[in-house]
Amino acid sequence: MDNLATIFSGDLQQLHPADIADRIQRMPLDQVADILRTLPAPLAGEALAELEDEIKAELLQEFSELELADLFQKLEHNDTTDLLGELDDSLQRTVLEQLPDDVSVPVQALLQYEEDTAGGIMSDRFIALAMDETIESSQQQLRRAAQFSTEDISYLYVVDHDQRLRGVASFRDLVFGSPHKKVADIMQESVTFLRVTDDQEEISRQFAHYHYLALPVLDQQDRVVGVVKASDVLEIAREEATEDMQLMVGLSGEERVLTPWRKSLPGRLPWLYVNLVTAFAAAAVIAFYESTIAHWTALAIFLPVVAGQGGNAGMQTLTVIIRDMALGEITRGDGRRALLKELFLGIANGLAIGLAVGLVAYLWKGSIALSLVACSAMILTHLVAGLAGVMIPFSLKFLKVDPAMASSIFITTITDLAGFLFFLGFATMAMRWLGVVP
Amino acid sequence: MDNLATIFSGDLQQLHPADIADRIQRMPLDQVADILRTLPAPLAGEALAELEDEIKAELLQEFSELELADLFQKLEHNDTTDLLGELDDSLQRTVLEQLPDDVSVPVQALLQYEEDTAGGIMSDRFIALAMDETIESSQQQLRRAAQFSTEDISYLYVVDHDQRLRGVASFRDLVFGSPHKKVADIMQESVTFLRVTDDQEEISRQFAHYHYLALPVLDQQDRVVGVVKASDVLEIAREEATEDMQLMVGLSGEERVLTPWRKSLPGRLPWLYVNLVTAFAAAAVIAFYESTIAHWTALAIFLPVVAGQGGNAGMQTLTVIIRDMALGEITRGDGRRALLKELFLGIANGLAIGLAVGLVAYLWKGSIALSLVACSAMILTHLVAGLAGVMIPFSLKFLKVDPAMASSIFITTITDLAGFLFFLGFATMAMRWLGVVP
Repeated sequence: MDNLATIFSGDLQQLHPADIADRIQRMPLDQVADILRTLPAPLAGEALAELEDEIKAELLQEFSELELADLFQKLEHNDTTDLLGELDDSLQRTVLEQLPDDVSVPVQALLQYEEDTAGGIMSDRFIALAMDETIESSQQQLRRAAQFSTEDISYLYVVDHDQRLRGVASFRDLVFGSPHKKVADIMQESVTFLRVTDDQEEISRQFAHYHYLALPVLDQQDRVVGVVKASDVLEIAREEATEDMQLMVGLSGEERVLTPWRKSLPGRLPWLYVNLVTAFAAAAVIAFYESTIAHWTALAIFLPVVAGQGGNAGMQTLTVIIRDMALGEITRGDGRRALLKELFLGIANGLAIGLAVGLVAYLWKGSIALSLVACSAMILTHLVAGLAGVMIPFSLKFLKVDPAMASSIFITTITDLAGFLFFLGFATMAMRWLGVVP
Repeated sequence: MDNLATIFSGDLQQLHPADIADRIQRMPLDQVADILRTLPAPLAGEALAELEDEIKAELLQEFSELELADLFQKLEHNDTTDLLGELDDSLQRTVLEQLPDDVSVPVQALLQYEEDTAGGIMSDRFIALAMDETIESSQQQLRRAAQFSTEDISYLYVVDHDQRLRGVASFRDLVFGSPHKKVADIMQESVTFLRVTDDQEEISRQFAHYHYLALPVLDQQDRVVGVVKASDVLEIAREEATEDMQLMVGLSGEERVLTPWRKSLPGRLPWLYVNLVTAFAAAAVIAFYESTIAHWTALAIFLPVVAGQGGNAGMQTLTVIIRDMALGEITRGDGRRALLKELFLGIANGLAIGLAVGLVAYLWKGSIALSLVACSAMILTHLVAGLAGVMIPFSLKFLKVDPAMASSIFITTITDLAGFLFFLGFATMAMRWLGVVP
C-alpha cells in the first residue's frame, strides 16, 4: 500500500493542487492520507485545502497533531485557518501550539472571524506601503518582497503609522515615479474597501456590480488586515447560488453528491415532514368536499392537474424573484411592480391554461359543467400562484429569513390549497345551486 | 424635462457607471436617453453598458446612429461589442461606419465571436511583450502604456514575431530584472490559456477550480487576442446559476423582475403547456382507477399527499445532482455512486414518511387497509423519486441537453405517475383480492 501511494504520488506532484484533490477525494480516507504523506510539504497542504469540505473534516482525523502542524506550516494562512476550522476546539489548540509563532499568531488572528464574512474569506498576503516613505525606499521594499506572487501586487495599499488605510497606489506609478517623491504624492485617496464583518453574499454582489479584481479589508480601527480577490469571490458566488437552489427545495444548502446518505438524511427528512404537514392541509380541503367527490368522481381526476399547474406557475414566479433578490437586482418599489406584472401574467397564463383544461374536460367527460368549473378554477389558481410567488419571498425577506428557505414548499402549499378550494368549491356550488347532476 | 435631466445628471457624474445604471434603469426610456445625453462621453457609454440587457436593446432605439457612434467611441471595445450585439445587422453596420478605424477594426474583430465564449467575454486590453526584446526596452513600453490601468498589467504575456503566446512574465521580474537581459530569459514558459471558442460555463469552472485572476485567450493560430478576468467570470457564474435555476422550473433562463409581462409570457406559457400534458398523464392514471375511487372516496384525499411528497423528495435529489453537474463536481462513476446513495435515502425517507402517513390515515379514517396502502405506496414513491432524481439529469446530459432544462416538470411527472399507480393500484388490489370493504 505505502509503495503504491509513493508511485502514485510521483505522478501527482506534476499536478495543480486542485487537480490532485480531484484525483484523490473519491478514494478511501486512509489511502488519501497515505498519498498526502508522500507529497512534499507545501503541495500536500495545498491539495488538502482544495478537498471538498465534506471530506476535509473526516480526513484530518487521520493525521496526528504533529503531522497536521507539518502540513500547515508552509500553507497560506487563510487556508490553514479554513482547515483548522474543521477541527474541534481542543485539537485546534494543540495543533496551534505545535506551529511556530510566525504562523500561529497570524492564523489565530484570522480564526477570530466568521467563515462567511470578509474576515473569513480574506488573505493576509498583501503589500502595504507607508505613506511618508519615499518612492525609492518603497521600490526597495517591493524588490525584497520576493515571496509575493504577481497577483498579490495588483494593488498596493498605502497606510499611515497606525496601519490605517489612506490610499491606493498603482504599481506603475510607483515603479516609474520620481524616486524622491513620497508615496503619499502618487497615491489615490479614494479607495473602496470592505469591513471584516461584511457578509459574503453582499461582497459577491459588490464585486459583480463594480467588477473589482480585489478589495482591501479593514478592521474596526480602519487598519488594513487583508485582501479579498475576485477569484475567491467567484467560488463564493457559486456556493451561494448552490445554497439558494438547495434551500428552495428543502435541502441543507451544503449537500453534495459525495455527501454520504447518512449525513444527507438529517438535511432532507425534516423538510419532507414539513411538506407532509402542508400536504395534509391540502388533503383536509379535499376531505371537506369528500361528499362532492363521492357524487362526482370525475373531479378526483382533475385534482392533480389543478395542483400541478398552480405549483409550476408559482415556482416560475418565485424563482425569478428569489434569484433577482440574491443578485441584488431588486430595489424598493419592485415588489409592487412585480405584483402588477404577475397579475397580468396570471390572467394571461390562467386564461390560456384554463381554456385548454376546460376543453379537455369537455372532450373527455362530455360535461360542460365540469369544463366551466375546471376552467374558472384554473384561471384563479394561476392568479394566486403569481401573486403568492411574489409575496412569499418578500415576506420571508421582511421577516429576515433567507427568502429561498423552503419557499417551494410554501408556494405549493398555497397553490394546492387555492386550487382545491376553487375547483371543489365551484363544483359544489354548481351541484348545489345550479342543479348540475354529474 | 431637459433641464431636469441636466440637474439630475450633475449628481450622477459623481457616481460609478454601475450605480448610474441602477439609478436610471427603472425610468421611462426617453428619460433615460435624455439623461445619458447630458453625461460626458465615456461615462454615458459606460453607464449604458452597465444597464440590464432587458433595457439595452430598447433604449438603443432612442439614439441616432451618430449619437451611438459618439457613445461608443471612448468605450472599452468589448463593451461596444456587447452593445452593438443588441442592434439589428443593418443598424450595426451603419454605426460601425460612423466609428473611426482604430475603434471599428478591433470591435469588428470581437464581433465575430459568440457571446457566451471566451472570445465574446474577453477584453482586448492587455500588454504583450516581444520575447526577444531586452528588459530595458520592455520597461519603456510599459512606461508609455499610460492608458492601461493597474488591473491590465496583472499579467504580462510574452509573444513571438507572429503574436503567438510563448510565456508569461511577472511584472516584478520585469521591473527589477537586469536591463540587458531578454524578456525570454525571465518569462515562465508554461502558461494556462483559453481558446476563443471555449464555452463560458467551462471557463467559469476553470476559474473557480484554479483560482485564476486572469487568463490569456488564443485564436486558432495560437495568437494572444484577449484576456478574461476573474471579475468578468464572476458575473458569468451568477448568470449561469440564474439560468440553471430558471430552466429547472420551466423559464427562459433570462427573465428578470424588470422583464415586462408580455415578454415573460412566451418564456413561461410553453412550459406550462408541457406541464399540463404531463399532468393529464397523471390524471389518466387516476381515471383508470376511477371506479376504485368511486367506491372508496377517502383515497382521493390522499392523492395530493402522495404526489406532493414524491415531488418534493425528487426535487431534493434532482437539485443536488444538477447543481453538482454545473459546478463540475461530478466525475465519471458518480452516477452509480449517486444511485446507491439515493437507494438508501429513498428507503430511509420512504419509511419515515410512509409510517407517518400510515399513522395519520389510520387515525383519521380508522382504516388499517388505507393505512397499509398509503404507507407502502409512500415508501415505493420515495424510492422512485430518488432514483429518477439521479437518472433524469444524467439522461439529459447524455442526450446533450442542459440537465436543468424543465427537469422539475419531468421529475414531478414521474413521481406523480409512480405515486398514483402505487397508491391506487395497491388500493384496488386490496379491494379486489383481499376483500377490503371501505
